[in-house]
Amino acid sequence: MYDFIAAENKFEKENIAWNGNRFLTGNGYFGIRGTLEEYTKEQMCAVNMAGIYDRVGDAWRESVNAPNPLYTYIKINGVKYALPEAEPLSHSQTLDFRRGLHLRTTSWQTPGGSVTVSCERFASMSRRRFIGMRYSVKTDFDCAAEIVTGIDGDVWDINGPHFVKMRIGDENGIKSVTGITGEKAVSVTAAERLYVLFDAETETEKTDKAVLSHIRFKAAAGTEYAIEKTSYIVTSADDFTEECTTSEVTYRELKDEHISAWDKIWSLSEIEIDGDDEAMYALNYSIYHLNCIAPRGMRSRSIPARGLSGQVYKGAVFWDTEMFMIDYYIHTEPEIAKTLLQYRIDTIGGALKKAEEYGLQGAYYAWESQEGGYEGCSDYNVTDVFTNRPMRTHFRDKQYHVSAAIVYGLMKYIRGTGDYDILNGGALGMVVECARFYRSLLLKYADKPYYEIHDVVGPDEYHERVNNNIYTNRMAKLVFDTALELIDIAGRRYPDRAAELDKKYGIEALRAMLSDSSEKLFIREPDENGIIEQFDGYFKLEDVSVDEVRSRLIDPREYWGGAYGVAAGTQVIKQADTAAMLSMFADEYGADILKRNFDYYEPRTEHGSSLSACMYSLLACRIGEAEKAYPLFMKSAKADLVKGGKEWAGLIYIGGTHPASEGGAWIVAVNGFAGITETENGIECRPLLPEKWNAMRFKLVYKGRLYGVSITKAGAEIKEI
Amino acid sequence: MYDFIAAENKFEKENIAWNGNRFLTGNGYFGIRGTLEEYTKEQMCAVNMAGIYDRVGDAWRESVNAPNPLYTYIKINGVKYALPEAEPLSHSQTLDFRRGLHLRTTSWQTPGGSVTVSCERFASMSRRRFIGMRYSVKTDFDCAAEIVTGIDGDVWDINGPHFVKMRIGDENGIKSVTGITGEKAVSVTAAERLYVLFDAETETEKTDKAVLSHIRFKAAAGTEYAIEKTSYIVTSADDFTEECTTSEVTYRELKDEHISAWDKIWSLSEIEIDGDDEAMYALNYSIYHLNCIAPRGMRSRSIPARGLSGQVYKGAVFWDTEMFMIDYYIHTEPEIAKTLLQYRIDTIGGALKKAEEYGLQGAYYAWESQEGGYEGCSDYNVTDVFTNRPMRTHFRDKQYHVSAAIVYGLMKYIRGTGDYDILNGGALGMVVECARFYRSLLLKYADKPYYEIHDVVGPDEYHERVNNNIYTNRMAKLVFDTALELIDIAGRRYPDRAAELDKKYGIEALRAMLSDSSEKLFIREPDENGIIEQFDGYFKLEDVSVDEVRSRLIDPREYWGGAYGVAAGTQVIKQADTAAMLSMFADEYGADILKRNFDYYEPRTEHGSSLSACMYSLLACRIGEAEKAYPLFMKSAKADLVKGGKEWAGLIYIGGTHPASEGGAWIVAVNGFAGITETENGIECRPLLPEKWNAMRFKLVYKGRLYGVSITKAGAEIKEI
Repeated sequence: MYDFIAAENKFEKENIAWNGNRFLTGNGYFGIRGTLEEYTKEQMCAVNMAGIYDRVGDAWRESVNAPNPLYTYIKINGVKYALPEAEPLSHSQTLDFRRGLHLRTTSWQTPGGSVTVSCERFASMSRRRFIGMRYSVKTDFDCAAEIVTGIDGDVWDINGPHFVKMRIGDENGIKSVTGITGEKAVSVTAAERLYVLFDAETETEKTDKAVLSHIRFKAAAGTEYAIEKTSYIVTSADDFTEECTTSEVTYRELKDEHISAWDKIWSLSEIEIDGDDEAMYALNYSIYHLNCIAPRGMRSRSIPARGLSGQVYKGAVFWDTEMFMIDYYIHTEPEIAKTLLQYRIDTIGGALKKAEEYGLQGAYYAWESQEGGYEGCSDYNVTDVFTNRPMRTHFRDKQYHVSAAIVYGLMKYIRGTGDYDILNGGALGMVVECARFYRSLLLKYADKPYYEIHDVVGPDEYHERVNNNIYTNRMAKLVFDTALELIDIAGRRYPDRAAELDKKYGIEALRAMLSDSSEKLFIREPDENGIIEQFDGYFKLEDVSVDEVRSRLIDPREYWGGAYGVAAGTQVIKQADTAAMLSMFADEYGADILKRNFDYYEPRTEHGSSLSACMYSLLACRIGEAEKAYPLFMKSAKADLVKGGKEWAGLIYIGGTHPASEGGAWIVAVNGFAGITETENGIECRPLLPEKWNAMRFKLVYKGRLYGVSITKAGAEIKEI
Repeated sequence: MYDFIAAENKFEKENIAWNGNRFLTGNGYFGIRGTLEEYTKEQMCAVNMAGIYDRVGDAWRESVNAPNPLYTYIKINGVKYALPEAEPLSHSQTLDFRRGLHLRTTSWQTPGGSVTVSCERFASMSRRRFIGMRYSVKTDFDCAAEIVTGIDGDVWDINGPHFVKMRIGDENGIKSVTGITGEKAVSVTAAERLYVLFDAETETEKTDKAVLSHIRFKAAAGTEYAIEKTSYIVTSADDFTEECTTSEVTYRELKDEHISAWDKIWSLSEIEIDGDDEAMYALNYSIYHLNCIAPRGMRSRSIPARGLSGQVYKGAVFWDTEMFMIDYYIHTEPEIAKTLLQYRIDTIGGALKKAEEYGLQGAYYAWESQEGGYEGCSDYNVTDVFTNRPMRTHFRDKQYHVSAAIVYGLMKYIRGTGDYDILNGGALGMVVECARFYRSLLLKYADKPYYEIHDVVGPDEYHERVNNNIYTNRMAKLVFDTALELIDIAGRRYPDRAAELDKKYGIEALRAMLSDSSEKLFIREPDENGIIEQFDGYFKLEDVSVDEVRSRLIDPREYWGGAYGVAAGTQVIKQADTAAMLSMFADEYGADILKRNFDYYEPRTEHGSSLSACMYSLLACRIGEAEKAYPLFMKSAKADLVKGGKEWAGLIYIGGTHPASEGGAWIVAVNGFAGITETENGIECRPLLPEKWNAMRFKLVYKGRLYGVSITKAGAEIKEI
């Protein structure tokens, strides 16, 4: 069994924010940033809650951070030793991601000798409310020591403070801090049971936002003094499918259960690669993150674009989930995939409302979806670095492709699980409303025979308000075709659902509308060079290199897109767009067309989105070019392992984890390199291993059955387990 | 007879640029900026040529300035005395605009005594190539004097230099400087005959760009020493309808003819107002400018948006001509109006090409039309003040209403002159091609019954890329209706033209297309408050005052429009848009609707364009509110009389004369206050004089006949003369 450890063995102040992301732990109910125990909001500490949002004044709505029950520091002879202020003698921070453990050890020199603190903690994967933490102190001299630990309600917020009321509790051995949000009065409680494993005098301090224990003791040289805390979170917006207890559990029990739960996860999801430890490591690290944020045991919840690493991107759910993450869950724990889709089914109200707001029909899903499908995206989503003014962007109003991504995700789920019954639970209506949405976008010139879709933002956000974006048009067609297919299926299998539709729209009228739309929608053909123009007029834009465009930046943080960004008037694109379409609809094009488009678009792509590299990588696999695919795959798999990702869009901080990139890496590994392909007879394996990969082994759930896949240079085998 | 004098009696350095505009002289072949004789390109001297353009490198194409034959200065005892360097004792600069004379007198103190120079000059209104100039010197002490005079080929250019070759001539008593443009090798020659009216030693100096006479003499105290020059311009791109001689003429003869020509102009065009000298002055000053730039005696030429005051706006022709200027010419010298329209008819090639460039049909006239209908407008027409980068603007590609303005101008001409024969000379085809252009813009949503026009810039340029701009849609409908009407007329009167059309498009198919387009084009109705929304979603924009928007400027020169300008997200508009439509189609709406829209839009209008005030003023007249109309009329009439006009759009200088505003003032005076209205029986007068106007008298040409109009508080009379 390969060791899964990410570590930093020296304290680097400038890594504080990044470490918060790469050392993240989580269990889908919350994410805990990889910050140190003594940190406060200054160091962007967060126990970031899934699915709870709040707005303060006119600022962006964003997810809410719970009071922090990890808050702990040490005093020696009355003096506090804490990072980042006190320079350490030595320091290490470690993520054991096979077991979901966050570890840190730090030593400081004090006037009387040195002190070392260690802490082990985890977001419980078995009892989803719980956080376990063991904090110990050792000195090399006798001294008066004090561990200060408790719950810090003065949390980090981007657009806070969200808690308009705080309640501090200390009853029956349980200390707690409860925050009540201002907008919707959601309560978020962090509570703790503290176990002091040595003789000490403990005093409780309550402030208006925190409750702290001051544990004072005489430390003898060479002796370890440890405390353990079993903390838990309870909110008034929980969505667990079964009761999720808060009853007492020892740290040891909690940790054992937690490690067992991770063992079980890894037994299903670990991917072994012979010959390329770096790739294996990055890929399983990606899988780790996908598991930290999976809404296990919940009914109807999805995953934010930055996972549970904070409030960046408002903690909102993007198309990322259905495009790039859901595949992993479908093929390891399909119940999680269903939970993700259930969130979309349940939030159709928000999508219907958004369409109506724009004078459109059907379901226009939020670009940045929050609870209830609320659109978290503002019309002003980037800040101009030159004027400090909000810039009018078109993510919210013109990125029409989001609804199609949801339909696409649903179909991947149905095809991968065989669970058509989801149609009986709201999914059919959802697809039909998405189709009605695209129908209401269709425009026809008076004297032209086909439909067009105008004024859109495609995946390549650097070119706003374009016409006939190939990705958007093709995805709209997919929605029409899918609706037709599912209406037929419903007619046979779920007649009540079909009858409902018939009553509402008339099945025949609906069918006629869908066929008309699908048949007449303009899908641009490859030109004489085999290249498909990304949108009307794209080829007329300045054809210039990514480096040249970058060299035109005046401020490194300025936005490349928008009306006047450096990329806007050029063919340089942000991310896979035509290539995304081709990687999804590869079967409809010859390998030569795929290759020509890869060769044309890839060098013109900034890869300014973490969604880009995996799409190109997958396309390279479709062309049979594993070596071209490989670096793009690695870029995708290492999105959170390598420092220096894009952290700014204008003046807006966009750092955090990149689960879509990690999900994308999984897709490339499984569907690209392993070449797992659905056929009429089930799944097949058409491997295309990178040269240095000698073998690859992993498990896969397909239509309710578990398969073991084993690939070597000699051949491939898929075996039901 | 009222005196027409504009004067500055003190030298004000900061007025140099503005004086160049307000003291302009011209004759339609060229405009001479109101700069002083000793000025060079530093002071923006220009003999700005109509209809000649040149490009240098990648810079904007612009009109060309001829070598300057006015260049003259004085030396006293070897020392040069010239503004703006040498501080004067006294100075006056005068425009006698009744006689088209530019006058200046300046005195300087010299060590030996004072010297006074005077100069009288004019752009000949009789011999269109000629410039007359009389320059005199007087000292109050005996001294050695020298007049330096000649032709300065080192001309002012915004995006020059345009002359790649210069030729200096001095033969048969004629000195000349010829410049050859780089792009099209157009030659522009300025020549002069010099008459020294006293004894002097004259020496000729030739440089590579100039030819100068050094006239040296002993000046006796109190004696006036005068020279006279009769200069002329010849170019290889002239378009006179009859031979335009350069043969010798004395200054006196030239001046007498010139004044007679202006007398004749004023006998037709002067407007007398009793009780309001200020208005009368401003209005006739406006009429003066319209005459300085009228392409009299030319076959096919139009008027740039900044007249002949320089290269601002590239010397290009805008919709201004047909919307705001042509009315004056139609009703005073209709041949000039015909020349303006002939320019459009002749340049349809450029318009057909432009439509094709955008994948559209028919004739899409240039936003900034140069020779041959060449589109002078760039995709990047404003410079960002914060980044100094060119901003992608949509004047060129989306300001679709320009073609409709030309059709509208044509119809005003036909209705005002009765000259249907213009249809036989290309105008019918032009209208049909404009209609085909608008047809190709029509879009229909799959499930809606009407046509829309999307993604346009209306007259209000602060809101780019909007849908269903009311002005644009209504004007498109006008084009369809006009084409239908003219096809019918052609069928009866010009069967050859109708047959040509039939052969090309099929008359019945054309009729069907035009009817379908006109009937189904969406023309937004007034809402429940009687207000017509300017475009889809306008009412959803922030409703905030013009002053509030202004207060948000960071840099006073920054552009209000574009994607992120301070006005873009608000209801503040640049200029009359809905109001322009209503002032033109007032008959289709009740007075209450007109009033409600005036009251709604006027306070939300920045009047950032000189085309705005006159439209609102006319609308106010349509509502019967002369006192509301009056200040807007005055603003329009005084556009070039009052300092402080908008001189910047981003970092682009946009100063110069404002003939559209001046033409607009004439329209308000004649169609608004005098209430001249076409009826089935000819013209009627429905006066609505501002309170302080006791009477108004002017002449008017209508369908080939000259009428005198006389209005008093007691009544109005129209009498054929």
